[in-house]
Amino acid sequence: MRMYDLIMKKRNRMSLSREEIRFMIEHYTAGMIPDYQMSAMMMAVYFNGMNEEETLDLTMAMAESGDMLDLSSIDGIKVDKHSTGGVGDKTSLALAPMVAACGVPVAKMSGRGLGHTGGTIDKLESFPGFSVSMETDRFMKQVNEIGIAIMGQTKDLAPADKKLYALRDVTATVDNMSLIASSIMSKKLASGADAIILDVKTGSGAFMKEEKDAFALAEEMVRIGKGAGRDTRAVISNMDEPLGYAIGNALEVREAIDTLKGKGPDDFLELCLTLGTFMVLAGKKAENEDEAREMLLEKIENGSALEKLAQFVKAQGGDESFVYEPERLPRASMEKTVTAARDGFISHIDCDQVGICSLILGGGRETKDSVIDLSVGLRLSKKVGDKVREGETLANLYGNDASLLSEAAQRYADACHISKEPVKKPLLIKGMIR
Amino acid sequence: MRMYDLIMKKRNRMSLSREEIRFMIEHYTAGMIPDYQMSAMMMAVYFNGMNEEETLDLTMAMAESGDMLDLSSIDGIKVDKHSTGGVGDKTSLALAPMVAACGVPVAKMSGRGLGHTGGTIDKLESFPGFSVSMETDRFMKQVNEIGIAIMGQTKDLAPADKKLYALRDVTATVDNMSLIASSIMSKKLASGADAIILDVKTGSGAFMKEEKDAFALAEEMVRIGKGAGRDTRAVISNMDEPLGYAIGNALEVREAIDTLKGKGPDDFLELCLTLGTFMVLAGKKAENEDEAREMLLEKIENGSALEKLAQFVKAQGGDESFVYEPERLPRASMEKTVTAARDGFISHIDCDQVGICSLILGGGRETKDSVIDLSVGLRLSKKVGDKVREGETLANLYGNDASLLSEAAQRYADACHISKEPVKKPLLIKGMIR
Repeated sequence: MRMYDLIMKKRNRMSLSREEIRFMIEHYTAGMIPDYQMSAMMMAVYFNGMNEEETLDLTMAMAESGDMLDLSSIDGIKVDKHSTGGVGDKTSLALAPMVAACGVPVAKMSGRGLGHTGGTIDKLESFPGFSVSMETDRFMKQVNEIGIAIMGQTKDLAPADKKLYALRDVTATVDNMSLIASSIMSKKLASGADAIILDVKTGSGAFMKEEKDAFALAEEMVRIGKGAGRDTRAVISNMDEPLGYAIGNALEVREAIDTLKGKGPDDFLELCLTLGTFMVLAGKKAENEDEAREMLLEKIENGSALEKLAQFVKAQGGDESFVYEPERLPRASMEKTVTAARDGFISHIDCDQVGICSLILGGGRETKDSVIDLSVGLRLSKKVGDKVREGETLANLYGNDASLLSEAAQRYADACHISKEPVKKPLLIKGMIR
Repeated sequence: MRMYDLIMKKRNRMSLSREEIRFMIEHYTAGMIPDYQMSAMMMAVYFNGMNEEETLDLTMAMAESGDMLDLSSIDGIKVDKHSTGGVGDKTSLALAPMVAACGVPVAKMSGRGLGHTGGTIDKLESFPGFSVSMETDRFMKQVNEIGIAIMGQTKDLAPADKKLYALRDVTATVDNMSLIASSIMSKKLASGADAIILDVKTGSGAFMKEEKDAFALAEEMVRIGKGAGRDTRAVISNMDEPLGYAIGNALEVREAIDTLKGKGPDDFLELCLTLGTFMVLAGKKAENEDEAREMLLEKIENGSALEKLAQFVKAQGGDESFVYEPERLPRASMEKTVTAARDGFISHIDCDQVGICSLILGGGRETKDSVIDLSVGLRLSKKVGDKVREGETLANLYGNDASLLSEAAQRYADACHISKEPVKKPLLIKGMIR
């Protein structure tokens, strides 16, 4: 088998067999197929696409290019959740303890990543002492004992995807549904969960700006998951404004704690309940959606979800007292308020710009080596559809550098649009794929 | 300027500006753009094409990526000729002396190349002592003195094309008209001739199997040549059977000599006259096509074309006595005859297979390091349309290894098809672009 012939086949609109895809991925990962052949192949895939079978074969080949985590020593149905990411997305922080409190084992690998805030791991590190570095054995033992554990991604998780994504990133071959879906799903499949719940974001703050693309990606990923024998479901949710009110690492942890106390923002709670319902159902802890939702709300009301967070933080070396006294979490030294220039209704909040505000304040990573300031960020006071009066607070910004705070404040003021006419609140849940 | 953005532009069906194409070619040649970005770009060009302006800009950028030969110290209009190659194509060997005898200066760079026989240079090396290695100064001086010189391609002729072609060759991005045309024309433009006459072959033995593709390539190349300010014309000629009767290095030299003596095959002579007419006209040595053709025929009849070949061989260190005694040129030690299995008419000769016969006998190069046997090859007795009787000779094969001769003979027998019905002689000249 020669890579040249495979490029030619794909270029000429033919489909690649499972053996051909496996050959390509194995030899590329091993350095036996050069980057210049793979980038030509990726561009041919960009133009001619991959069918469902090819996409599944590619995903499996990438998943199996490194370690496949075996979670069989954990009791019960292991349910994983993945979000395509957005501004203010602190979902895992509240959702994982909620679901674990319902008896669904949460055995999650998470990342740090680049972006306007840190990843789930960075946010959790707001709890002093908290750590995700552990051996797989301890990870499984912890899930069996308290029902929840989060560890850092092992280096050898889907290495083919890592290498291929880096190549696509510099050759303008990222934007293809099959390639995007297989990249995400290969890591999820290698992470070993029995069921996968996907949160696909759409809107100005999401990777998928267009709703139809988000639906297509969700469908593709659900197809792959099911094809690989995993119970897979997806929620398509709005990211045309930030999720909740808090953006920034410790600020988001506080909002997640508020939510576990029953005092969280409506949209954020709703998303947690929607995703949580799917997770509880996949974990077979409820008979139907209503029952699952009730169960989740009950775990908030009776305090067991918050308690689960505390158990989890403690088990991973963190100081759980901060869960009950979140005001002690890292706080920035300065604050700046952005106010409305006129009366009206919030018509749009440029989501990408809000992310950049957080980045300016020091809350995110521009490169792998950036150091994150966990204390900084924004807390919005008004969201799309809200009525506002001139001089009223739109958002509070928290930082440790006066000039950066001013820069971010100006940017936020520009990002937040006010119209004279009333504006409808956006729909949070755009669709579900069951 | 970033290569990433240029790939994205081309991928998204936008055209590249002259500055962008120049940036891309200069930085790629200098090793500052990696192969994996260029191969993605080439695949995007394969799918989205290049317009006429982009194609010309690409050709110029590649031509100017190395030395641009300055032939201005040679008197008169310098006319170059290029063939896209085929089986039995010994055209330059006869055409160059014919045209030079008419007073058109022939200052040609030639290559060795891979294939079923050697290139023009290899064939000329059938004359003991003949050499193409010379300094540019001597090259120009020789053209001024005797009207003809052929030198090997300088290493630094269109290095961008060399590098890019090698990449396209392993990434399935060769088959694009703009890329094929710019690759050929960049070298021709860098070679410095004032006028360029192109012989574009079509048929089973040609790179362009389909006539319409050959016409499209010819048109593209003529457009480029004219766009670059060179008088450019093209002939589209048949390569659905070998040209002439001889295939193999020394055998082809003998056939060229026969032609210069007025005893050559009709098709080969016709092609030389057609191309020669264009060259004489471009060189402004005749008023019209009839006059040019008459002049060329006269140079054969009065022996001056043959004499020009002898002068040329001598000037480049070769033994010119072989021109007058071609039977002394390298001869193989063994001969094998392929005969007709039945009565009928030759309906088709698989041109590619005839090329492979020559390669099997040792007449060509499979890799850069192959050593060519100048003595071996084939001499056909029958061509398409000819009547043949059972047992009559179809071709004689010449070699130095009995088992290879048998293998080639079997292959030739399979390649030569006989039909019961009469077959029309194929048209040699398919078209011209003036």
